[in-house]
Amino acid sequence: MSRRKRRGRHHGIAETSRQRKVNYRGLKNPLIRQPAFSEDRLEAIHDTALRVIEELGIKVLNDEAREILRQAGASIEEASQMVKIDRELVTAALESAPSEFTLHGRSPEYDVRLGGDSIAFVPVGGAPHVSDLDRGKRPATLEDTRNIIRLGEHFDVIHLQSPNVESQDIPVHLRHYRVIESQLTLSRKPFFVYSRGSAQVEDAFAMTRIGYGLSQQKFEAKPWCYTVINTNSPRQLDIPMCQGIIDFARAGQASVITPFTLAGAMAPVTMPGALVLQHAEALTGITLAQSVRPGAPVVYGSFTSNVDMKSGSPAFGTPEFVRAAFGAGQLARHIGLPWRGSAATASNAPDEQAVYEYLMSAWGAILGGVNMMVHAAGWLEGGLTGSMEKFILDIEMLQTFAEIFNPLTSSDAELAYEAIAAVDPGSHFFGCEHTMERYQTAFYEPLVSDRSNFGQWTDNGSLTATQRANGIWKQVLRDFEAPALDQARNEELRAFIERRSAEGGAAAD
Amino acid sequence: MSRRKRRGRHHGIAETSRQRKVNYRGLKNPLIRQPAFSEDRLEAIHDTALRVIEELGIKVLNDEAREILRQAGASIEEASQMVKIDRELVTAALESAPSEFTLHGRSPEYDVRLGGDSIAFVPVGGAPHVSDLDRGKRPATLEDTRNIIRLGEHFDVIHLQSPNVESQDIPVHLRHYRVIESQLTLSRKPFFVYSRGSAQVEDAFAMTRIGYGLSQQKFEAKPWCYTVINTNSPRQLDIPMCQGIIDFARAGQASVITPFTLAGAMAPVTMPGALVLQHAEALTGITLAQSVRPGAPVVYGSFTSNVDMKSGSPAFGTPEFVRAAFGAGQLARHIGLPWRGSAATASNAPDEQAVYEYLMSAWGAILGGVNMMVHAAGWLEGGLTGSMEKFILDIEMLQTFAEIFNPLTSSDAELAYEAIAAVDPGSHFFGCEHTMERYQTAFYEPLVSDRSNFGQWTDNGSLTATQRANGIWKQVLRDFEAPALDQARNEELRAFIERRSAEGGAAAD
Repeated sequence: MSRRKRRGRHHGIAETSRQRKVNYRGLKNPLIRQPAFSEDRLEAIHDTALRVIEELGIKVLNDEAREILRQAGASIEEASQMVKIDRELVTAALESAPSEFTLHGRSPEYDVRLGGDSIAFVPVGGAPHVSDLDRGKRPATLEDTRNIIRLGEHFDVIHLQSPNVESQDIPVHLRHYRVIESQLTLSRKPFFVYSRGSAQVEDAFAMTRIGYGLSQQKFEAKPWCYTVINTNSPRQLDIPMCQGIIDFARAGQASVITPFTLAGAMAPVTMPGALVLQHAEALTGITLAQSVRPGAPVVYGSFTSNVDMKSGSPAFGTPEFVRAAFGAGQLARHIGLPWRGSAATASNAPDEQAVYEYLMSAWGAILGGVNMMVHAAGWLEGGLTGSMEKFILDIEMLQTFAEIFNPLTSSDAELAYEAIAAVDPGSHFFGCEHTMERYQTAFYEPLVSDRSNFGQWTDNGSLTATQRANGIWKQVLRDFEAPALDQARNEELRAFIERRSAEGGAAAD
Repeated sequence: MSRRKRRGRHHGIAETSRQRKVNYRGLKNPLIRQPAFSEDRLEAIHDTALRVIEELGIKVLNDEAREILRQAGASIEEASQMVKIDRELVTAALESAPSEFTLHGRSPEYDVRLGGDSIAFVPVGGAPHVSDLDRGKRPATLEDTRNIIRLGEHFDVIHLQSPNVESQDIPVHLRHYRVIESQLTLSRKPFFVYSRGSAQVEDAFAMTRIGYGLSQQKFEAKPWCYTVINTNSPRQLDIPMCQGIIDFARAGQASVITPFTLAGAMAPVTMPGALVLQHAEALTGITLAQSVRPGAPVVYGSFTSNVDMKSGSPAFGTPEFVRAAFGAGQLARHIGLPWRGSAATASNAPDEQAVYEYLMSAWGAILGGVNMMVHAAGWLEGGLTGSMEKFILDIEMLQTFAEIFNPLTSSDAELAYEAIAAVDPGSHFFGCEHTMERYQTAFYEPLVSDRSNFGQWTDNGSLTATQRANGIWKQVLRDFEAPALDQARNEELRAFIERRSAEGGAAAD
């Protein structure tokens, strides 16, 4: 053994330059799915939801949507705006909707598969505020939005861009220009577009074509961006949400149709009842999308939890949430569509409650077989705040999940009989060949977790995980380099924004 | 509707006196078990462990243990103290060991079933220190031990007493008297006895007989207490641990035989290799117990995790830990024994890291099918500290698990078709009959979680979950009333302790 090699070993550093490299893209979830219901009760929930749609009806506030559904065969009562849809029409919609599809990024390595065993993690969505330990909670700005895009681009375990935090310093009629420009220039991952009326959506589509250099035909041939459609539970679809479904389906882009069915508030107090309502509303939105364009990519969304009956506030990460997630996953598989679930918390701070509520939710979604786990990084306070520190804590947990998905190799060499034979009883495996060959790649290296002893930890300032996370997000932002967008496209994007801004922008509906 | 009824409704308070009462005792885990290995690789791990035992051998430092194994048919090399055991002998031991058994409490409602689908939660074990937010980390005292017994008695979701924190203010030769007296007088739950030599163990058994009013014969007829046996990995069983196995088996009491196999330190760096070593060591201890008394109650223990390769410190709640837990559960089912796993963390504070490491570990154990989840409340800093606040946070998570285990009822009434029909689109379910009939019992009521809005939370002092937990454990201790032990037994117990103390107590081996 050379002196250099021995010295390396003495310091616990092997000569090899092998470093642990794990690909967190294209994740598949191999865990067995947990059911909430027997097959016959699952069928009963599906059937009851169909009865809600065909016997009770859904109120559809958008004129064009009612007309589309009428032409597809639904019965409409114009005075009340109530739409009743026969189960045959719903079933046909479920047949035309793709069971899996790919959302496309700037280049193919950023493509994200939705459906089957694929699982994608999506950061915080739609929070008006942002918070960090230095400046506390405050209205979010474009710079905050851009910072969260940067964090999402940096970590491979984040697969899609998200509704993010709101750029409240930019007027709503101009906001989408700046946000979509940021999404296109700071990240290569498939991105999100708000459904705030056709004018804004058309702008977004135009910017996508420019940013990715696509013809209208190439753009419409496959999905490059997605929107989230929230129904107005119970049993109501409002004007911009319907318009979003119509516009996205028409352009072949993806809609994630997500009722926010809080048991005991906007939904029945029983979790199965809340799931019936969720299912009825989601199926109505899916039927609308498929009536616009059969084959339009749609995701079956669920966000069913319970309220706190004392305060009336939403609760997340509860046992009810977890069991509803198991059930929602079953319903998604029952209808054969990709499923969007959530990892959520009601906590007001990035504290212990935030972590256990988030992680209970996340396990519920993951064991339910979620394909698109939304709010998976940085979501706080029931969605009112995006937390920079929580984003980092969540990345640690998401990376842990990604590693759990990676099956253990158990070849004979991994069973280590020879290594066990070579190490004396009561001794240790620190320096043995079997260890030295593998230790650099053997284990997940944590992002936030501190395993120093109490004395070292105290000497380092007794920092909690959230306090350490504060240093990590700052470091990531300091080191961030934007993935350069083609110069010509960048200029065309800017020209587009200038022209449309000069024209007055696009008001939200 | 009477005026009184209307008023009740107005305040959101129903007339009924029904309150939510959930029985957290006698829990069964209905979740589908997650495997880590295919059936043939599981068999390969089992086979390799048998090869370790029969070809490489285990070093057994206790003379009596070697003699017992020799008489049972093992081959012994006295000079090296190495014991090699044929697989036939191991297999016979696995056949005589009960696949399930009951640990008995002071009265039958405190009995705890171990094995099958039953799951029991056990608090912090063996921590020399205790910590709380007021006084920080400090050496634990008898009063700390007693406080943790009180917390464990208070919460129904805690099923067994535990090694607790160390009563460092009591000399070791007298400590077991005061600790066991505390366990018998402050709690009715089956309790723990340290294996610190036969003299202490005999004292403990005598105190159990006095405390429960049992004859020697009745005592030995079924298990009333348990011990934890940690092997000295790799491949070594020390003197007191062997003696503990012998003494507990002889008296028909329960041994939880738990190798602490840290991959990359005391065990191979690969998780399957670490499981091979764990399995070999546990099987050796089990074979010793069954050689002493066929049918002696034993639990297959596992505590396999990985070290942090930078610091050499143990890591917990890692992806490696979770997958090892899946594998350990498979191994336990393969040999048909109850399985002990752990919920663990290396964090130095009851912070966000403590929660996510704990909860990842706990999900790993629970999805692995754990029967006895040890360190499930209050364990911190890799077992060096018992944290009062962490105890409360963990109870919240354990109660959440207990609720998740409780399947959703999904009768037609729960599907709520009529309720959905009765509520207008865009309205809400707050006051409807279906909600009013159920809301008091519909949802889990949290212990620590705060769902107030940001303004209220700020007005209440912006407390984190750990800070709120500080108030909760104090309140529980303030309100605690010891479950009175029969006066005569109590006096006999005290007389026994006085006499034995006067005789000089019992030194630990």
